[in-house]
Amino acid sequence: MNKDKYNIAIVGATGAVGSEFLSVLEKRNFPIANLKLLASKRSAGKTILFKNKDYIVEELTTESFSNIDIALFSAGGDRAKEFAPAAVKAGAIVIDNSSAFRMDSDVPLIVPEVNPEAAKNHKGIIANPNCTTIIMCVALAPIHKINPVKRIIMASYQAVSGAGAMALEELKEQQKNILEGNQPQASIFKHVIANNVFSHDSDMQDNGYNQEEMKMVHETRKIFSDNTISISPTCIRVPIYRAHSEALHMELTHPVHIKTITEALQKAPGLKIIDDNQNNYFPMPLDASFQDDVLVGRIRKDLDNDKGLNIFICGDQLLKGAALNAVQIAELLI
Amino acid sequence: MNKDKYNIAIVGATGAVGSEFLSVLEKRNFPIANLKLLASKRSAGKTILFKNKDYIVEELTTESFSNIDIALFSAGGDRAKEFAPAAVKAGAIVIDNSSAFRMDSDVPLIVPEVNPEAAKNHKGIIANPNCTTIIMCVALAPIHKINPVKRIIMASYQAVSGAGAMALEELKEQQKNILEGNQPQASIFKHVIANNVFSHDSDMQDNGYNQEEMKMVHETRKIFSDNTISISPTCIRVPIYRAHSEALHMELTHPVHIKTITEALQKAPGLKIIDDNQNNYFPMPLDASFQDDVLVGRIRKDLDNDKGLNIFICGDQLLKGAALNAVQIAELLI
Repeated sequence: MNKDKYNIAIVGATGAVGSEFLSVLEKRNFPIANLKLLASKRSAGKTILFKNKDYIVEELTTESFSNIDIALFSAGGDRAKEFAPAAVKAGAIVIDNSSAFRMDSDVPLIVPEVNPEAAKNHKGIIANPNCTTIIMCVALAPIHKINPVKRIIMASYQAVSGAGAMALEELKEQQKNILEGNQPQASIFKHVIANNVFSHDSDMQDNGYNQEEMKMVHETRKIFSDNTISISPTCIRVPIYRAHSEALHMELTHPVHIKTITEALQKAPGLKIIDDNQNNYFPMPLDASFQDDVLVGRIRKDLDNDKGLNIFICGDQLLKGAALNAVQIAELLI
Repeated sequence: MNKDKYNIAIVGATGAVGSEFLSVLEKRNFPIANLKLLASKRSAGKTILFKNKDYIVEELTTESFSNIDIALFSAGGDRAKEFAPAAVKAGAIVIDNSSAFRMDSDVPLIVPEVNPEAAKNHKGIIANPNCTTIIMCVALAPIHKINPVKRIIMASYQAVSGAGAMALEELKEQQKNILEGNQPQASIFKHVIANNVFSHDSDMQDNGYNQEEMKMVHETRKIFSDNTISISPTCIRVPIYRAHSEALHMELTHPVHIKTITEALQKAPGLKIIDDNQNNYFPMPLDASFQDDVLVGRIRKDLDNDKGLNIFICGDQLLKGAALNAVQIAELLI
């Protein structure tokens, strides 16, 4: 596309990621001609402020996309499957945040720091990867470039807001109840999350891994165009508001030189190193929240494996893990 | 020792682990003749109830140990170094919860489910391992017996009460402040722990690992009498009250058969399997808190490595991770 300004639709404008789409578009001063906010019938009629102008949310229909250049979808897999084809037919490029199209061979799956060139090969739909996957891939990219990553063992510490705004409210309510000596209640999650951790709430597969873990495996391989990368994941929900953390234990192709790895991470886009051994100061979700950069620290050699590299990373799962990455994909198109 | 009842001293009786010593001794109906509660001058004179009888805490001195058979120490490394030799000289056997003597070649380091026979070779002092290490070793023991563990990649989710009762109060105070819209303050920990996770607060070593991580490496090898076990740890503090969790990604000697592994874990002492894929119900610190057993679940094969086994475990770090394990060591002696 080659225009001065673009007609943009936000599908799922009233949701957690939808509102992040708007703040990212505003912050990055994305060249918007007309903005259309779409949501379910229930939310239609609501007013949302964008750049000091009120926009009325319209009901999402197959007729919503005439004259739209780019449609940013974050309305779940079912709505994506139902409405993305209509958007494409109307001439829009869809960037979808759900898992509906991510593994389709026709659909590019993009982390702009890793595979921006894939944006050229879209057939109307581009998929935004899973949040935990994006955050990991940003940190892997500069390492993989100088010393290819063969195997990754990953344990995550995932914030409740990754399960939506209601899950965040549930955590706060549970924390309040516990502090007041009352019994906490779980309804969004199956288990109480306050003062607890549990295995990720996505569906379990027959192989003993949950969907979140399998997304990390399949999506990472697709993003790096390398089906030989071996990934062994454990995804865990922790009682924090925002930003996902990941302990990464990697095996690379060649022996690890920490200085070279650190320099590569320093120069890479989208990353910020926090690795202060003296003050025991490393990446923390409180620091990563509401930030564009993925934080990287605890950069150290494995104790026994000369090709082993361990790091600890944190990233805002609603920004780089969702809305920011989608808008960066849109920026590749214009 | 071969008596009907034993004279027991608790050193650090007013501390977090000290009070757990007392509740474990009471619950297990340990055959006590006389009980002596020792603490610093500051705490001397306090009264503690044990089996419906009041005991007055006495000041710890080098003269405290006459006629004592077993002294359970949980008063930190410095006090252990100062007073354990006096206790041994007076004829007591010391079971010390600090890290002061753990790696001494003269001192057995014991997890009764793994190396109970080591209790025979003491020279007056037996060391109780690090909490995170004990919890891991209980789960490793039955696996290692049928299919030796060659490599362990471990990421932990450690409760704040592992850093003491004041750290727990700090978390609660921070949670309260955040819910009320006030700024949380950190003083026990360097960083705010409420709604946050951070790299373990123990001192960093020159190799980029913290002390807690290095304890897991060295102590596990000593407990299993196997210096070839390779361990790659990441220790992380999470905002929960009690019980440590660990994601373990292991490489065994032979190909993994999940059914055989699960049966071995089922039969093993000190373990309880919670592995309900259908209901997404696995080990959680809320379930492990105040329980003797270490919970094990997410028992699954690595996706790519035929010899790879992944599990998720939770254990009460004040019980099996400290007081219970020490009392079990005492039970080996009588």
